[in-house]
Amino acid sequence: EKENFVITPRATDYSQWYQDVIQAAQMVDQSPVKGCMVIRPWGMAVWDELKDELNRRIKETGTQNAYFPLFIPMSFLSKEAEHVEGFAKECAVVTHHRLCADPSGKGLMADPEAKLEEPLIVRPTSETIIWDMFRKWISSYRDLPLKVNQWANVVRWELRTRPFLRSAEFLWQEGHTAHASKEEADGCAREMLDVYAEVAEGILAIPVVKGTKSPSERFAGADETYTIEALMQNGWALQSGTSHFLGQNFAKAFDVKFQNADQSAELVWATSWGVSTRLLGALVMTHSDDAGLVLPPQVSPVQVVIIPVGRGKKENDEKKVTAALKSQGIRYKVDDSRDNMKPGPKFYEWERRGVPLRVEVGPRDVDANKVRGEDDGRGDLPFDQTNFAQDIKKQLQDIQTGLLDAARKRLEENTKTVASYDELKTKLENGETGFFLVPWKDDAVNEETIKTETKATIRCFPFAHNGPGAVNGKKCFYSGKDATHMALFARAF
Amino acid sequence: EKENFVITPRATDYSQWYQDVIQAAQMVDQSPVKGCMVIRPWGMAVWDELKDELNRRIKETGTQNAYFPLFIPMSFLSKEAEHVEGFAKECAVVTHHRLCADPSGKGLMADPEAKLEEPLIVRPTSETIIWDMFRKWISSYRDLPLKVNQWANVVRWELRTRPFLRSAEFLWQEGHTAHASKEEADGCAREMLDVYAEVAEGILAIPVVKGTKSPSERFAGADETYTIEALMQNGWALQSGTSHFLGQNFAKAFDVKFQNADQSAELVWATSWGVSTRLLGALVMTHSDDAGLVLPPQVSPVQVVIIPVGRGKKENDEKKVTAALKSQGIRYKVDDSRDNMKPGPKFYEWERRGVPLRVEVGPRDVDANKVRGEDDGRGDLPFDQTNFAQDIKKQLQDIQTGLLDAARKRLEENTKTVASYDELKTKLENGETGFFLVPWKDDAVNEETIKTETKATIRCFPFAHNGPGAVNGKKCFYSGKDATHMALFARAF
Repeated sequence: EKENFVITPRATDYSQWYQDVIQAAQMVDQSPVKGCMVIRPWGMAVWDELKDELNRRIKETGTQNAYFPLFIPMSFLSKEAEHVEGFAKECAVVTHHRLCADPSGKGLMADPEAKLEEPLIVRPTSETIIWDMFRKWISSYRDLPLKVNQWANVVRWELRTRPFLRSAEFLWQEGHTAHASKEEADGCAREMLDVYAEVAEGILAIPVVKGTKSPSERFAGADETYTIEALMQNGWALQSGTSHFLGQNFAKAFDVKFQNADQSAELVWATSWGVSTRLLGALVMTHSDDAGLVLPPQVSPVQVVIIPVGRGKKENDEKKVTAALKSQGIRYKVDDSRDNMKPGPKFYEWERRGVPLRVEVGPRDVDANKVRGEDDGRGDLPFDQTNFAQDIKKQLQDIQTGLLDAARKRLEENTKTVASYDELKTKLENGETGFFLVPWKDDAVNEETIKTETKATIRCFPFAHNGPGAVNGKKCFYSGKDATHMALFARAF
Repeated sequence: EKENFVITPRATDYSQWYQDVIQAAQMVDQSPVKGCMVIRPWGMAVWDELKDELNRRIKETGTQNAYFPLFIPMSFLSKEAEHVEGFAKECAVVTHHRLCADPSGKGLMADPEAKLEEPLIVRPTSETIIWDMFRKWISSYRDLPLKVNQWANVVRWELRTRPFLRSAEFLWQEGHTAHASKEEADGCAREMLDVYAEVAEGILAIPVVKGTKSPSERFAGADETYTIEALMQNGWALQSGTSHFLGQNFAKAFDVKFQNADQSAELVWATSWGVSTRLLGALVMTHSDDAGLVLPPQVSPVQVVIIPVGRGKKENDEKKVTAALKSQGIRYKVDDSRDNMKPGPKFYEWERRGVPLRVEVGPRDVDANKVRGEDDGRGDLPFDQTNFAQDIKKQLQDIQTGLLDAARKRLEENTKTVASYDELKTKLENGETGFFLVPWKDDAVNEETIKTETKATIRCFPFAHNGPGAVNGKKCFYSGKDATHMALFARAF
């Protein structure tokens, strides 16, 4: 590992900064497979912390984990017309089930005699195979709601990839639910969006705007897509999680009906919802700085790193410190096994990796009632067995709150409006970024024109700005016609 | 769901009994993709309990979780000669990255214009891609040992499949480690086998025999394969976990060297080790009976199910009971939401699903200091706030111990010896099963002959019977030559 890795400053090259931060933090590495990333232990540990938090909340909604096949028969994709449109162009296709020696004498090839009768798709998402199973499991209203979730890998073939943000393979959870009524299904989709927002804000300290996607940005096969949109430090938006009300589209495609209490057959209503390792990209771009990764304590695999300094009776001191941390359930690590590294480089490394608190413990420090916090401005921490860990815990809470507050302030300061489309164009041309909240008359053609001309897209129609009467008397900032929504425009990743 | 599902008795058709048990317990379902299973919530919850237990122990050995790509470039497979031999004939091959409309006008096809330059293999195991990354991560002895693990899906194309036991896709963990010395690597492989045995016996209540595989049964690319072998109720063996000492084979194939303390370059030593959802098959076939699944409490998602009976002030009673269970960290479920089901069928269903304890709580039961345990012979349980949950906990421990003891007794009683190969053949022909421990002179041709003639294979050379001097003066039961090992033969799944 390169110890002296220099991180490109954000001001110099934001995109390179991002790549540098995740590499310097050892979160991720390029793999030999185009577009596929290797998630290194540090990145995986962050994902696992996030996963635990989200998994618990998903279970609390009465959803159960399950596992469905990686492969989807090609014909399944065609059953829902919009769905196939959305995914056919970016899927990995399995055509053979065996390799054989290449007759040219060099290497291997797919064995022509082991060609599959029907190609299989590596799942880009699992609606089709899950609804095929739901047909077997649902017969009566008593079987509803049926709520399952899986933690899985999915593949969407992308030409331009970036670790976490866009990659051919990524990890995610996908929830799929079946309901007896439209209202219940829609309510479920909205409830899950709330869960995502709660985790984004409460755990990752990423403030988000909740809203509805415009029809042209909906998930392929959905009647309505809800989204949480976050604002990165460079003023671009990042879609961080989506939840779909699928109407009866998949029930129709896969013939899934239930008998209601009156003994008559009805089509089932559906939702699906997912967040992915993309959230780690949002995490990096919300908090990190030119010194490297910054992790909110709630999601940091190590919340406090103890770096022993000097010689002497430090072991006992460390034990007292770690015992205190343990008593408060704080995740800590003692970095004492790398004798070839001085404390300075250790501090530097843990800073780059985003550990919230780094403290050094030297001989007699504990006797002298102190351990040294390395972050300037904080200075020495008073140490005594009863208060030290609580003090650390308080500091961790303050850091968590501070990160969320700072990000929220940035989001608020960068949410603005414009009086006209010309003004938006000029601002974007001049390099201004952020969220632009404007009255809008829903129109797919106009939306596409704006995207082509400015690269800005409708991130969502925010719930908070689309209550009853929200657009009364307002005119669309683009067409001048009566507005149908308040829309949030932005450049996006 | 069919409530009156009848489970085929073991004596009638063991194989059908297995299928019936896992279906009646709602652990698994057939998927529309040949050879791929759907793991239903109950099966998934059992796997998740097992996963948590194993994951914690893996981390305690200093191993970190990571994630590597699903796809492996075809050429990687060829780099290790034995490895490719082992896996080329059973892998799913991705050849295209897009679908297009079939010109015949019907449906879709792999787009000929989106053919990959080099086919990708869906990982059957990840040694090759991981060792390609290890080359980037290892340069000095200070980088060693390097120990990573991933929880992932893998695909091995099988023609004859059975849920959990043998399926095209399955879930597993695969650990991969790199070491500076042969001794350390071999020690690591043996340590992980101990971890597997501990989880099999301590959590799943499956007694196992630890040992070394014969050379012809080794993992493709290993210098030595260690295994835990369990004995199912029908007297067949089930390989339940393996750990491989890979020597320097993958280091050579992927050119992974480290600088030792003397500044000279050496090849790295390797291990890999894995257990899979196959363990769930072992679990089912070790404890279950003609009434359905039997789960050891340690791995049961629900340890106690509370079934309310009668009417009256039962809600308060239930609350007292559940509060008591919660205080002891017991996993419980109150089955109170299915008003259309009588207590009888509920009991029957939870029994089929393997819940260790099923208790009914009726009005005034708690006041009367009792709840009814449904398992005969146990009768009413005295209930009072302080002792009830401890009593339940004690019962759960007894059930756990009882299952292990019974399985261990069966394993011991069914481990026997034979004086000659003729005796073995006769016994197997007469339908006798179990483990046969015999002196053996290692010989791949003889091993193959025995397999062809009797379908019995060497499950392992048990550690416990291959200590120093174990074969002194003994002659091979087949060839009559000086024995090299004590070998354990059995029919196996």
